[in-house]
Amino acid sequence: MDDIDIEVVSDPDLTDPVFIEGLPGVGHVGKLVAEHLVEEFDGELVRRVYTTDFPPQVTVDDDGVAELTHAEFHHVDADGQDLVVLTGDHQAASNEGHYTLTTAFLDIAEEFGCERAFALGGVPTGELIEDDEYDVLAARTGDTDREELEAAGVEFRENEPAGGIVGVSGLVLGLGTRRGLSAACLMGETSGYLVDPKSAQAVLEVLQNLLDIEVDFSDLEERAEEMEEVVGKIQEMQGSGGGGMPSEDELRYIG
Amino acid sequence: MDDIDIEVVSDPDLTDPVFIEGLPGVGHVGKLVAEHLVEEFDGELVRRVYTTDFPPQVTVDDDGVAELTHAEFHHVDADGQDLVVLTGDHQAASNEGHYTLTTAFLDIAEEFGCERAFALGGVPTGELIEDDEYDVLAARTGDTDREELEAAGVEFRENEPAGGIVGVSGLVLGLGTRRGLSAACLMGETSGYLVDPKSAQAVLEVLQNLLDIEVDFSDLEERAEEMEEVVGKIQEMQGSGGGGMPSEDELRYIG
Amino acid sequence: MDDIDIEVVSDPDLTDPVFIEGLPGVGHVGKLVAEHLVEEFDGELVRRVYTTDFPPQVTVDDDGVAELTHAEFHHVDADGQDLVVLTGDHQAASNEGHYTLTTAFLDIAEEFGCERAFALGGVPTGELIEDDEYDVLAARTGDTDREELEAAGVEFRENEPAGGIVGVSGLVLGLGTRRGLSAACLMGETSGYLVDPKSAQAVLEVLQNLLDIEVDFSDLEERAEEMEEVVGKIQEMQGSGGGGMPSEDELRYIG
Amino acid sequence: MDDIDIEVVSDPDLTDPVFIEGLPGVGHVGKLVAEHLVEEFDGELVRRVYTTDFPPQVTVDDDGVAELTHAEFHHVDADGQDLVVLTGDHQAASNEGHYTLTTAFLDIAEEFGCERAFALGGVPTGELIEDDEYDVLAARTGDTDREELEAAGVEFRENEPAGGIVGVSGLVLGLGTRRGLSAACLMGETSGYLVDPKSAQAVLEVLQNLLDIEVDFSDLEERAEEMEEVVGKIQEMQGSGGGGMPSEDELRYIG
Repeated sequence: MDDIDIEVVSDPDLTDPVFIEGLPGVGHVGKLVAEHLVEEFDGELVRRVYTTDFPPQVTVDDDGVAELTHAEFHHVDADGQDLVVLTGDHQAASNEGHYTLTTAFLDIAEEFGCERAFALGGVPTGELIEDDEYDVLAARTGDTDREELEAAGVEFRENEPAGGIVGVSGLVLGLGTRRGLSAACLMGETSGYLVDPKSAQAVLEVLQNLLDIEVDFSDLEERAEEMEEVVGKIQEMQGSGGGGMPSEDELRYIG
Repeated sequence: MDDIDIEVVSDPDLTDPVFIEGLPGVGHVGKLVAEHLVEEFDGELVRRVYTTDFPPQVTVDDDGVAELTHAEFHHVDADGQDLVVLTGDHQAASNEGHYTLTTAFLDIAEEFGCERAFALGGVPTGELIEDDEYDVLAARTGDTDREELEAAGVEFRENEPAGGIVGVSGLVLGLGTRRGLSAACLMGETSGYLVDPKSAQAVLEVLQNLLDIEVDFSDLEERAEEMEEVVGKIQEMQGSGGGGMPSEDELRYIG
Repeated sequence: MDDIDIEVVSDPDLTDPVFIEGLPGVGHVGKLVAEHLVEEFDGELVRRVYTTDFPPQVTVDDDGVAELTHAEFHHVDADGQDLVVLTGDHQAASNEGHYTLTTAFLDIAEEFGCERAFALGGVPTGELIEDDEYDVLAARTGDTDREELEAAGVEFRENEPAGGIVGVSGLVLGLGTRRGLSAACLMGETSGYLVDPKSAQAVLEVLQNLLDIEVDFSDLEERAEEMEEVVGKIQEMQGSGGGGMPSEDELRYIG
Repeated sequence: MDDIDIEVVSDPDLTDPVFIEGLPGVGHVGKLVAEHLVEEFDGELVRRVYTTDFPPQVTVDDDGVAELTHAEFHHVDADGQDLVVLTGDHQAASNEGHYTLTTAFLDIAEEFGCERAFALGGVPTGELIEDDEYDVLAARTGDTDREELEAAGVEFRENEPAGGIVGVSGLVLGLGTRRGLSAACLMGETSGYLVDPKSAQAVLEVLQNLLDIEVDFSDLEERAEEMEEVVGKIQEMQGSGGGGMPSEDELRYIG
């Protein structure tokens, strides 16, 4: 096996496709959105990407069949808008692996003809988001229009995200710039302690505006309600004594 | 020395051989079974595999002679059933090393003509197994018959093992699938705290059924009795005060 | 992307240029001096250096534009003295990366015709420097004149710095020696807990003498005053009880 | 710079030279012996070995001159017995680096015509050695005579050293075997907490017998007395209350 091994599953012809990246990260926001797109629009698996920089690991499906860890590209036809959606269970394990892997991802997106990309993720606020006010922050490559992004509902804030953007999402912009890709990173605010379907909804709303598509949210809403029950139970357990908000430690427990 | 260095010790002609992998892991279950097979059937060393991904280390034998750390393949003639058995003292030290090393292992198995493989290991339950009810879980490649495995005594359980299968055993399935090997991973339940010869017996019983061979268990039974004495002493030491079960900390101590 | 990727931004002809290295390190002393030189003399960006050994990360500027992490070379015309100044946000992440990256840096310096180099840094004393007595220690390549350095205000002390010099600054001397570069490392004493603009001033004074240039210090002085206010506040908070000096723990907090 | 870079300083013709390895390790026993041989017999530097697997670091000498970290080979003429002695400040930093570096070391030894080798080190006992009874354990390559080693004063003990021999010393035997080098590892018993010149003397005595040379011990004896004063002071500090032996924690402090 090579360092990176790309398996071609199918090779559809796409029209003006947009590359969507949603690997695991803060609050699993990007992964939730990307997987939701694949499920809602019944995406078609087009590529598997294996790499020796992923953990040496197989997952086991319900029928007991083992599958080597990999990232997946699906073609999603979102009401006529072609998307190439990247999902998976892992980021790379090393600095160099991140660069090599993102380069392979961008090669695949380019091969499908993607000239625009959205890297999806979360930005941690360190506290639970109140009143369902989930802002979406953005960063962009230099040739991506700021006004268009703002019109779609994102915010640009000075010095945020404070530490820059780390991982594949960051490199989609950083390496994308260098090959002329027009890309933006959409980051839903999230506590950082919980898998956050509400933050994913906020990002998905922005994405709807940007791509002029419409997505059924009911599955994400269900998952959000489940998460709220979990949080509610924690608050009860914490109960009588003090403020209703779970402590950081408790939240981390279910993160 | 290359990254991987394979020393050919002997090159017997084998008939429909089956590849058995038993490197160290949870409860050393796989290693115990593989070493037991080599000892009971007086296996013949056929390959040594050295790699720069193993620790820079020599073992010293009873005559003071140092030997560079390596993995070993033995040919085992189990009542007419040819086996190619992999044992050793180490897994690889890095993600990439796991992939490279397992690829080398599968190359050797293929070279000997193995078309079937069993990767042996343990699955941690987090508590001592009671009443000697050692279940054996399994995972498989897609073209390995599930019913045949179940008939031999394994269980397939949804969402188990929870985190997938990590290490060489996982990759024997994951990389094996990609080269058309029919493989299953047999995982004996074990506390995870102790070297567990009883779990090894449970796995060996399944393997007997699958390979239609018969193995003398007495050595494993002896080791199991020794382990029980150790556990018994710990329980005594813990003694008077409380529940008879050793605490996790105590178990870890002898793990 | 290659392991190291050098982007040529501009290629000015320089006269007897001197290479100045100021990457992050103890007290950020080297970085402060190098950035101050670039700002005061309105330096011109000449090279960007990308490497897969830097974190997989982008920074985001005030307009929301993401930029891939890199090191930068500026040409600085300091009153007629040409300088080639290296700054950045990261050292390499691995042993090997440090060697590879410093080799690339020295190649660039050589390409511009630099035959002399100053690697700038801090040396930690473990306690706050009192009475503004910021000594500057030095180390040198064998063909760099010791007396000239001492005349410029540095000290050579036996067995200091105790553990040698680690990182790019050390390798500028170590690898520089082997390619005939005349280089010295100038290390400002600093507590090691704080970003230290006063230590940077002390190093800059030495550098003024060595390069026969004059630099406006007011920006560094302002930053030093800001830092003093921070330290003052900590001391107040610590207040009543005891010695006015902040504890190591408190200092680390703002380091 | 290549991964490994060997600088030829001089190239003397040697007669039946023996390779002596003394890099840092437990109690710095091997390093003390190797350096003692170089000093007593006024050894001549013959090779410097640089590698990107060493820390990115320079040491600074008493005249302020920086030198890139490296390992050194000296030719030592010990009363007519030619030795090729390897010393240095570091082991490799990675598994793979250990293999690559030891291979380079063995290449150099071979180039000088060494057919025999002694890898020197310490074996930790976990407690202070009493009554100056410093045993020396040994391990060997298969073609190295056990009786000759025992006659020289070493012991072979079953299952010792328990974890095998790790690092360059182990690989001198492990990789040496595979290229037909006759090698032994001589390991002085030592607490493991202290730099141990007495253990070094014990190893040196064995080496005298094996090489039929005579070495002046006075420098090592002086260093041993200094260490004893240090230990004595610790015991006094511990003083009144209890057992005269310093606790493990105290010993580690000066280790």
